[in-house]
Amino acid sequence: MTQQRKFQVGVIGAGSCKPEEADAAYQIGREIARRGAVLVCGALGGVMEAACQGARDGGGTTVGLLPTDQKEDANPYVDVAIVTGMGHARNAIVAGSSDVIIAVGGEYGTLSEIALGLTMGKKVISLQGGWEIPGVIIAQDSETAVDMAFKLLLQ
Amino acid sequence: MTQQRKFQVGVIGAGSCKPEEADAAYQIGREIARRGAVLVCGALGGVMEAACQGARDGGGTTVGLLPTDQKEDANPYVDVAIVTGMGHARNAIVAGSSDVIIAVGGEYGTLSEIALGLTMGKKVISLQGGWEIPGVIIAQDSETAVDMAFKLLLQ
Amino acid sequence: MTQQRKFQVGVIGAGSCKPEEADAAYQIGREIARRGAVLVCGALGGVMEAACQGARDGGGTTVGLLPTDQKEDANPYVDVAIVTGMGHARNAIVAGSSDVIIAVGGEYGTLSEIALGLTMGKKVISLQGGWEIPGVIIAQDSETAVDMAFKLLLQ
Amino acid sequence: MTQQRKFQVGVIGAGSCKPEEADAAYQIGREIARRGAVLVCGALGGVMEAACQGARDGGGTTVGLLPTDQKEDANPYVDVAIVTGMGHARNAIVAGSSDVIIAVGGEYGTLSEIALGLTMGKKVISLQGGWEIPGVIIAQDSETAVDMAFKLLLQ
Repeated sequence: MTQQRKFQVGVIGAGSCKPEEADAAYQIGREIARRGAVLVCGALGGVMEAACQGARDGGGTTVGLLPTDQKEDANPYVDVAIVTGMGHARNAIVAGSSDVIIAVGGEYGTLSEIALGLTMGKKVISLQGGWEIPGVIIAQDSETAVDMAFKLLLQ
Repeated sequence: MTQQRKFQVGVIGAGSCKPEEADAAYQIGREIARRGAVLVCGALGGVMEAACQGARDGGGTTVGLLPTDQKEDANPYVDVAIVTGMGHARNAIVAGSSDVIIAVGGEYGTLSEIALGLTMGKKVISLQGGWEIPGVIIAQDSETAVDMAFKLLLQ
Repeated sequence: MTQQRKFQVGVIGAGSCKPEEADAAYQIGREIARRGAVLVCGALGGVMEAACQGARDGGGTTVGLLPTDQKEDANPYVDVAIVTGMGHARNAIVAGSSDVIIAVGGEYGTLSEIALGLTMGKKVISLQGGWEIPGVIIAQDSETAVDMAFKLLLQ
Repeated sequence: MTQQRKFQVGVIGAGSCKPEEADAAYQIGREIARRGAVLVCGALGGVMEAACQGARDGGGTTVGLLPTDQKEDANPYVDVAIVTGMGHARNAIVAGSSDVIIAVGGEYGTLSEIALGLTMGKKVISLQGGWEIPGVIIAQDSETAVDMAFKLLLQ
């Protein structure tokens, strides 16, 4: 008997981040899990780790796509570690594996994931204060970001 | 609070296969799940689908690494669909993401995963009748294959 | 006897483009070739094809990194066709293989290459009217763009 | 005016090799160049370097697909360095970018390239003493290997 596959929500952002970004990522991750979706991320620290920790606390499953070839490089809250060994090219897999993407701040790596998501036709939500590229939906706070994401998934 | 990450066992083989290979893959997948490991595979049909179905029935989590860019191409027993869009290069991610690899029959794609696994230093177990490359450990049946795999993981 | 390896200059932009963008790309490609560098691009049409045509007319070598798995998809001015079969992930290889990058207009795919280049520490020059991301150097016209690129390479 | 794109011949083998393998690879590379084809390889040492040196001496163009993210890791006879940063996944690009493949000895990485080539439907020629997988064409010596390769290309 097959079940409906769960939604997969990507949370992207920098590997080291400001405390308020970590807070937002944690809340986003936790809420994604509570709503029954799988968290997809880049497996490293900062926003990725905070989102995974939130999802873990929310009772969800976390998937981390590592740029390196060492499973041990995944943050401790990653349940499923995908070891790509592909450096920045793994950003395309983060985008491709996410049904919808939420960006929290971030630097050029995050921008590449936003752009890759948009070029694949994915909806990308960016928390206010992060990248504001044409086509990106801006959310005022983490709760709104998750609300928007699930509204888009259920359309 | 972080938990110990689960073992990830790769099951590799052809996208269409003989009934006895599907049976073996099903049993291997179910036993992997019962022993608490995550199943990693290439997300498609044949051996991959049978292994996922077994793991699902064994109460486990299944991860499928798709070569295509469409989540819908994953077999119905894949819980987490990683959409690589990378064609045959995804074989390197299957090998890289598996702590140990079990091959069931298979064609050249499977051989490439065996070789990629071996070049990464992974242990590769092949069910009798499949690829018998120097360095691959041959198992007589599916039960022995899983026993060997977990013995290697726990060394 | 080894020779000094030639510089590799990436020219990025959309697969279909406005005539003035094609003109600019052609001039940029031709000038890159005249100055003795290899042209690196994404192998498809639009800006990529115009740049290759220019480089061919300038007597240079053109390298195209195809997202598809068919060599025949390369535009007719590509000398060396690299068949990645990796979809959008090939954008990371375009960025990684370029010593300096010149963007001509472009959509989200181009933005991803700009961002990947910047995250790898590459210098990125964008022709006025294209993506103006912080960190990108804006050039008024194609001649200035190439001048800037070679000034950066020779630093 | 477009020209016919040149054939691209892949030469694969280990990054460190026996002197007689280096000799064979050198002769194969030189002959590929003399016959007007581009040499494609994995950019590193051993068989790859010897083949590039031969192709350079034969007046040809050499393309190296680096697994690392550093252009400097290419051997000194690589003309065009493709910086994949993708580790073993670059093996799929070596296979995909070769119209025909010649293997000289080699270890598991080479075997993965042979298998990836075969799964893509490429013809693979292996110099006697190397991998003898079903489907691989065995050549007695380097001259025969190149003869076979060009016969297959011109079919």
